Amino acid sequence: MKNYSIAKSRRIRSTPYTSRIEKQGVTSYTVYNHMLLPAAFGSIEDSYHHLKKDVQVWDVAAERQVEISGKDSAKLIQLMTCRDLTKSKIGRCYYCPIIDDSGNLVNDPVILKLAEDKWWVSIADSDVIFFAKGLASGNKLEVKIFEPNVDIIAIQGPKSFSLMEKIFGKVITELKFFGFDYYNFKDVKHLIARSGWSKQGGFEVYVENTQSGLDLYDQLFELGKEFNVKPGCPNLIERIESGLLSYGNDFDNNDNPFECGFEKYINLDSNINFLGKDKLKKIKSEGIKKKLMGVEIEVENISLTGSLNITDNNGKLIGDLRSACYSPHFKKVIGIAMINKPFCKASETGKLEIEDKTLTVKVCDLPFI
Amino acid sequence: MKNYSIAKSRRIRSTPYTSRIEKQGVTSYTVYNHMLLPAAFGSIEDSYHHLKKDVQVWDVAAERQVEISGKDSAKLIQLMTCRDLTKSKIGRCYYCPIIDDSGNLVNDPVILKLAEDKWWVSIADSDVIFFAKGLASGNKLEVKIFEPNVDIIAIQGPKSFSLMEKIFGKVITELKFFGFDYYNFKDVKHLIARSGWSKQGGFEVYVENTQSGLDLYDQLFELGKEFNVKPGCPNLIERIESGLLSYGNDFDNNDNPFECGFEKYINLDSNINFLGKDKLKKIKSEGIKKKLMGVEIEVENISLTGSLNITDNNGKLIGDLRSACYSPHFKKVIGIAMINKPFCKASETGKLEIEDKTLTVKVCDLPFI
Repeated sequence: MKNYSIAKSRRIRSTPYTSRIEKQGVTSYTVYNHMLLPAAFGSIEDSYHHLKKDVQVWDVAAERQVEISGKDSAKLIQLMTCRDLTKSKIGRCYYCPIIDDSGNLVNDPVILKLAEDKWWVSIADSDVIFFAKGLASGNKLEVKIFEPNVDIIAIQGPKSFSLMEKIFGKVITELKFFGFDYYNFKDVKHLIARSGWSKQGGFEVYVENTQSGLDLYDQLFELGKEFNVKPGCPNLIERIESGLLSYGNDFDNNDNPFECGFEKYINLDSNINFLGKDKLKKIKSEGIKKKLMGVEIEVENISLTGSLNITDNNGKLIGDLRSACYSPHFKKVIGIAMINKPFCKASETGKLEIEDKTLTVKVCDLPFI
Repeated sequence: MKNYSIAKSRRIRSTPYTSRIEKQGVTSYTVYNHMLLPAAFGSIEDSYHHLKKDVQVWDVAAERQVEISGKDSAKLIQLMTCRDLTKSKIGRCYYCPIIDDSGNLVNDPVILKLAEDKWWVSIADSDVIFFAKGLASGNKLEVKIFEPNVDIIAIQGPKSFSLMEKIFGKVITELKFFGFDYYNFKDVKHLIARSGWSKQGGFEVYVENTQSGLDLYDQLFELGKEFNVKPGCPNLIERIESGLLSYGNDFDNNDNPFECGFEKYINLDSNINFLGKDKLKKIKSEGIKKKLMGVEIEVENISLTGSLNITDNNGKLIGDLRSACYSPHFKKVIGIAMINKPFCKASETGKLEIEDKTLTVKVCDLPFI
């Protein structure tokens, strides 16, 4: 497939780390929350093997924060998500589907509770800030909403723990999964969470002090040599194998959380008030009409640039393929597809056409591993 | 400057015309409303000269529509913009700053009034759909809000009138600037507006019937040969020379409409109810603290990938450069910058540093022409 260059501008802005990753060999970008997000440093498959074995440092500044603070902040946060946050704790991260009035998805951020009246919504690729502002204004809520100057560095991979211990001491290894706390790097305090967009383990540093973040970035590479540290980015293969869903790729504002397998984050029985609650109750009682499923595709390799229709043997549309890659682990092409009823169950088969070839598609359960 | 490739995916989706423009020589993309927007077909300067002389066809499907319909649709539309739309007419386009509760800009769409209770908000690069959904929900408005399947083709340049007349007949040349109407192409009705993101004249076809749009696209190139038609895209040089502002580049959610020179679209004295009205009144009475200005920069050429600080002779920050290019018309580098008071007036000077060189910046009025 031919490569096209990305036209940079202030509108799809660089991060504090961009000049560094360009010296380190980034080859490809995507755009995420109006910002550059590295998509490859050469071979994605090589990077996948490295991520599963050693440690990588990622420029994920494009994971922007929406800061919501003030008297009614907890009320607004709860209004936006179907996950019950009444028992949420300061110092914890919560994966929360954001839902609109129709019961459809707006985003799937991780929400950090910084204080009883202060939250960071660490967003996937859609402008949650304007949804929050619209809701706050319409409901006359006393809140302050803005995008703070936070540029995340992720440290991912099995050796991330050793590397981070070398910099922050043993205390950092005691942080629990989806917990966060504050740690000093050369006298500057950084919020660090045990989280990240891979299943290989690791941390995310929410950098507010840009200069200190740049120093930390350099230090990670300096002290990481013994762990074979490399620059990296969210890896298409690793995230599909691990079943990490991507807003905009695997689901969007035309899909509801039941269709995406988010049942455990939908609390319909609690007394909380959130958007789309009645719609979700109705969907639950009537049942869903389509569902995100895994697929295996009989082909050597694949490179997806958009949705691909999946049909049954009579040519009837039964779903669409949304993400796919060759999986070194399964030694076959796997993907994530939205499949209509009654085809959305394991072992159903369908077909798809790509570059004039007709390929067989086998439906399977998610996650793959 | 080194080129980096764009990593395609469903999240930054292709348009119906993508396969065509790739055969026609597109070399560079940007991302706009989560969709691919062509940014260059080879030399931007060559394309600029061509656009000012002949006619181009642009894939601007990334100019997405937010459709707002229903009983309270006019109320919601008015709530979002500081421009008085009480006397708006069906069949007309309105350039409308969208404003939040703080009086800051959310977007600067063209709004099409399709019926008294049906509107298309033709958006710049931010998710206005979620702002509208939040406001509708909070204010309990009876509206339906969604993104319709509309993929715009723009026909721009002085010969666009002759080309469009050849396809749609003389009637299309009678359409007034910022008017729209419906015209048949091979028995399929298309909404066509006399508009577009250049000052060279032309039309935008709001394609709802994708197959007919593809046929029209091909026909434009077939019948356009005698007018030297070429594929193109919004042109950085032409739009800066013409003073066409770009949301995300020249201004964003940290700026208010007075700072951006949108005075004539701010109707504070009318009885209409819109967000941020009190804030804008306060800003008007207190005066603005910064303003978008033109600048001339003493350098041969420039390629901007983000903001650049502008300082006075003592190193004090006086503003930031947000867009810039070499202008063949003025035979110098020109740009658009947000300049702080009291420096935001013509003939003030400042400095900026780029690649270790210190350049002199002269402030001037907008638009340049």
